[in-house]
Amino acid sequence: MQDLIDRIRAFNLERQWGQYHSPKNLVMALAGEVGEMIEHFQWLTQEQSRHLPAAKKAAVEEEIGDVTLCLLNLADQLGVDILDAAGRKLERNREKYPVEKAKGRAEKYTELG
Amino acid sequence: MQDLIDRIRAFNLERQWGQYHSPKNLVMALAGEVGEMIEHFQWLTQEQSRHLPAAKKAAVEEEIGDVTLCLLNLADQLGVDILDAAGRKLERNREKYPVEKAKGRAEKYTELG
Amino acid sequence: MQDLIDRIRAFNLERQWGQYHSPKNLVMALAGEVGEMIEHFQWLTQEQSRHLPAAKKAAVEEEIGDVTLCLLNLADQLGVDILDAAGRKLERNREKYPVEKAKGRAEKYTELG
Amino acid sequence: MQDLIDRIRAFNLERQWGQYHSPKNLVMALAGEVGEMIEHFQWLTQEQSRHLPAAKKAAVEEEIGDVTLCLLNLADQLGVDILDAAGRKLERNREKYPVEKAKGRAEKYTELG
Repeated sequence: MQDLIDRIRAFNLERQWGQYHSPKNLVMALAGEVGEMIEHFQWLTQEQSRHLPAAKKAAVEEEIGDVTLCLLNLADQLGVDILDAAGRKLERNREKYPVEKAKGRAEKYTELG
Repeated sequence: MQDLIDRIRAFNLERQWGQYHSPKNLVMALAGEVGEMIEHFQWLTQEQSRHLPAAKKAAVEEEIGDVTLCLLNLADQLGVDILDAAGRKLERNREKYPVEKAKGRAEKYTELG
Repeated sequence: MQDLIDRIRAFNLERQWGQYHSPKNLVMALAGEVGEMIEHFQWLTQEQSRHLPAAKKAAVEEEIGDVTLCLLNLADQLGVDILDAAGRKLERNREKYPVEKAKGRAEKYTELG
Repeated sequence: MQDLIDRIRAFNLERQWGQYHSPKNLVMALAGEVGEMIEHFQWLTQEQSRHLPAAKKAAVEEEIGDVTLCLLNLADQLGVDILDAAGRKLERNREKYPVEKAKGRAEKYTELG
């Protein structure tokens, strides 16, 4: 991952884009990319979303690339390691949603939260 | 990263949450988490967003954790490696925004796109 | 609607919030509110989303209120009438998605677009 | 507004799109449209966002049209009147953010909330 982060930094530096990359702007860019991803799924049934045709799958993969680039850019500006942050959050979720309470319940995040 | 993905899988399996984790649902969850992140930044100036006070910084880091967990969950359901997808997209962006055209220009994604 | 817009203006004026209400910030606030709305629906099936229990329905109605307030605030800052804008867009969609092509097809916005 | 809602209903009926318009799907469509709007603003300064050039202004107005159509569609499916919902929420906000506490403070929604 560090290699990818280095390449993102070089990419931005060559283009002098750092001036636009305040965390405020990058979180907007992230939301924009997630909006593009959501458009691929909005008219699908859940079942269809589990079995994407190849062309759609390729398009979604590209969006995942965009989202990841934005997220890494944002995290880098803030000095955050996304895997550390995710690992810590997973441990917190483990306490928040104990197995015996959360098992097979969809209300997890909202009502249980 | 594989270790984190394994831990996410185990977390979901223990709670029998796989049934809710269609890509359609997970992309919604991702959008919801990004929405929470955006709320931290909406009233800040760009300058303020570059220098977050410690409490805000910690809250944002937790949101980055949530976004990363959702993204890894989604990518795992689709069989996508987020770093591969991001690396490929970065190469495509390199062609789409050549240095001589994109240097120091904010319109990058929209007008040049 | 004009009456509601006047009340929103008075509300903002009393709190001296106009300084924060740049279109950039308001579009972020709008995205944040939509994120809260999406969280209510992310684990529901489509069928469940058509038949919300009363408590959920009330919470969603409140989110619709928030989204509408943000949208009216944003439109007011830009000097846009949301009903005019929507009416014009509906006419454009009428041409973009002619009945004979779009009838009963879910790909409407993406592939046909 | 009722006239616009009637026209939206007729538009959907002619295209037999009601089958896709579960609230779950429509909230995703709303998020997608807001994502498109955010992309117009992500690299602008707040000052620039207050003074959009004509072409950008026209594009943003079209996005406001899209967002409004989605919101009206969603609200109609749920049997919610957006102006009522917004009016009620404004009253609730009046209590939540009393003038003497909220005046000129940007932390309004988050810290005060």
